[in-house]
Amino acid sequence: MGLKVLQTTMHLQRSNSGMPRPFNFSAGPAAMPLEVLQQAAAEMTDWHGSGMGVMEMSHRGKEFISIYEQAEADLRSLLQVPAHFKILFMQGGGIAENAIVPLNLSRGGEVDFVVTGSWSQKSFKEAARYCTPHLAASAEADGFKTLPAPNTWQLRSQAQYVHLCTNETIHGVECHELPDLAALGSQAPLVIDFSSHVLSRPVDWSRVGLAFGGAQKNIGPAGLTLVVVREDLLGHALRACPSAFDYQLVAQSGSMYNTPPTYGIYMAGLIFQWALRQREGALSGVAALEQRNIAKAKLLYDALDASCFYQNSVSPNCRSRMNIPFFLADESRNQAFLDGAKARGFLQLKGHKSVGGMRASIYNAMPMEGVQALVDYLHDFEKTQA
Amino acid sequence: MGLKVLQTTMHLQRSNSGMPRPFNFSAGPAAMPLEVLQQAAAEMTDWHGSGMGVMEMSHRGKEFISIYEQAEADLRSLLQVPAHFKILFMQGGGIAENAIVPLNLSRGGEVDFVVTGSWSQKSFKEAARYCTPHLAASAEADGFKTLPAPNTWQLRSQAQYVHLCTNETIHGVECHELPDLAALGSQAPLVIDFSSHVLSRPVDWSRVGLAFGGAQKNIGPAGLTLVVVREDLLGHALRACPSAFDYQLVAQSGSMYNTPPTYGIYMAGLIFQWALRQREGALSGVAALEQRNIAKAKLLYDALDASCFYQNSVSPNCRSRMNIPFFLADESRNQAFLDGAKARGFLQLKGHKSVGGMRASIYNAMPMEGVQALVDYLHDFEKTQA
Repeated sequence: MGLKVLQTTMHLQRSNSGMPRPFNFSAGPAAMPLEVLQQAAAEMTDWHGSGMGVMEMSHRGKEFISIYEQAEADLRSLLQVPAHFKILFMQGGGIAENAIVPLNLSRGGEVDFVVTGSWSQKSFKEAARYCTPHLAASAEADGFKTLPAPNTWQLRSQAQYVHLCTNETIHGVECHELPDLAALGSQAPLVIDFSSHVLSRPVDWSRVGLAFGGAQKNIGPAGLTLVVVREDLLGHALRACPSAFDYQLVAQSGSMYNTPPTYGIYMAGLIFQWALRQREGALSGVAALEQRNIAKAKLLYDALDASCFYQNSVSPNCRSRMNIPFFLADESRNQAFLDGAKARGFLQLKGHKSVGGMRASIYNAMPMEGVQALVDYLHDFEKTQA
Repeated sequence: MGLKVLQTTMHLQRSNSGMPRPFNFSAGPAAMPLEVLQQAAAEMTDWHGSGMGVMEMSHRGKEFISIYEQAEADLRSLLQVPAHFKILFMQGGGIAENAIVPLNLSRGGEVDFVVTGSWSQKSFKEAARYCTPHLAASAEADGFKTLPAPNTWQLRSQAQYVHLCTNETIHGVECHELPDLAALGSQAPLVIDFSSHVLSRPVDWSRVGLAFGGAQKNIGPAGLTLVVVREDLLGHALRACPSAFDYQLVAQSGSMYNTPPTYGIYMAGLIFQWALRQREGALSGVAALEQRNIAKAKLLYDALDASCFYQNSVSPNCRSRMNIPFFLADESRNQAFLDGAKARGFLQLKGHKSVGGMRASIYNAMPMEGVQALVDYLHDFEKTQA
């Protein structure tokens, strides 16, 4: 059955050459919708009759400004970003933001960190260059398989903000409800690193002060960073903050304080338009994507849980819909599993080197058919190893 | 004659649709070779049979690593970068480097600046966040129309480095011979901002400690930054330096401390291969490009100088081969000039808002035919206005 499904689904995504496209489970940079790549290819030498490709346009010319404004408006619509939040397109990815956020928001004071995996660990460590980071909660003791309940967080009244990574790409842990810091007695704004699940679900902006994310999972090419920040948090950058990364300067200049990554913004814009076109029943846009992502993740977790041959040990209430690490009970069969996966046209299933095993990243661009094909392979491989 | 030349050259660059391509004089992001854009379009959904587009590849997978290593090797070959220099592919552009360089090299001490135009002025100002910048020389008093002779620079023995922008994009001033700081009595390394003429000519690395440049003129898409740094200058970053911008960490990780701008590196690699293919008589690569750039610039400057209708007032010994600002003697005719230029298919000739007038940026990707067509238009427009 596995091959049959695969052959069927291969018809759904064919590259320009007519060859079937493999299913790409990369954690990022990650698969993009084929129709988006095809549009980019078609417009590469001449965007909309302008006589220029997008890479060749001045960022201050009317052509690129129109691309920029459309991308920003579409993102604002998709994520229902309120008017009192600024959308910034920056550079450096999440790792640079680990410095840029405290440079802008910490005022050199204390910051609360909730450490739920590798990414928030990095954020916590980097912040010490600029402020006094405080470990409000950590799931390290149980191997990052759970999320510490918000009512156990040791929040401090003097904290300038609270940092939370809402999807940990490596450990496969996702926060399914943003904490209500005010209800927990904190007046600090919540900063979320939503790099690896942005656009996969709505964001409750009433609970967020700033959200940042590298683009290379659900938004577009690596090298573009998205920052969504509440206006009242602007204007407090430390003197050590490079001007190019001062949120206030970036906001005032419409993300053009330095030359922005123009092609990345264009690609993100195509992704936003693709996302707006998505439908699931009566749902559209991010709501449709979320429903699809819930169904995709359920299909894969159910298959893993139904077998003793495979294991995902993350607590069910905080399993990621985007990044699903799993392990073979007999790890000596890992290479055989990967070889068989490759033969079926599944790319980049190997787990992160820090945790081993396998990882299926099933971002927005991964169709249900790709997850079904993987599930079929899980069954088939298990049978051959019996 | 103008139209005839234009029609001839239009045959040389046609987009996929078969339509003639305009000549694009943008100062950056700037025109790219058509054959490079066409290759990128052809490989967009499937790079070399991998089943993935370049944007969809993990930066740590063997496919992207091969792209990265080839790009680095080709650049090292093109610019003859010695083995004791590291090549880093970073993010943030020249404006971010205005902070990143002093964060890495100043040790919080004193730095000598030679201010020759808008870009070095920005660098001088930004550095004050991290060190004590000292104005060793400035051409501001004469409107940035000359380059202060190196033997007049007030270099200080305690300077950690000397900053020089070797091509000022806005003022059209280029340094045609790098200063020999040792001969001037300074032991400090020379830092050059070569953003807007990198790859247009060779670099004398014996006189350079570090060179940086945004990619968006001669190298590739905006959002990629090139840094070439002598190994002995690594390892002295200030504590305030974000890890993602610590040259030592970036060098140790092969530019993968954070996820690099993978597509930008790929495009730069295609440009490097294009540059390696260029020939002028017995010359190839950067030497061929340099000869072509000398001829292109001479053609345009000669036309400007031969007419009282147009003016370029930069001192002949430091005129840029890349960025040629010029003014109509009667500025009331500016709009008519731009309208006529547009009608002939010349894009983005308007001068920078800070100086006005016109500017023709004729980077590597601008063919001689494009400059000839512009020169023909200069003649023709002058005649119509007589």
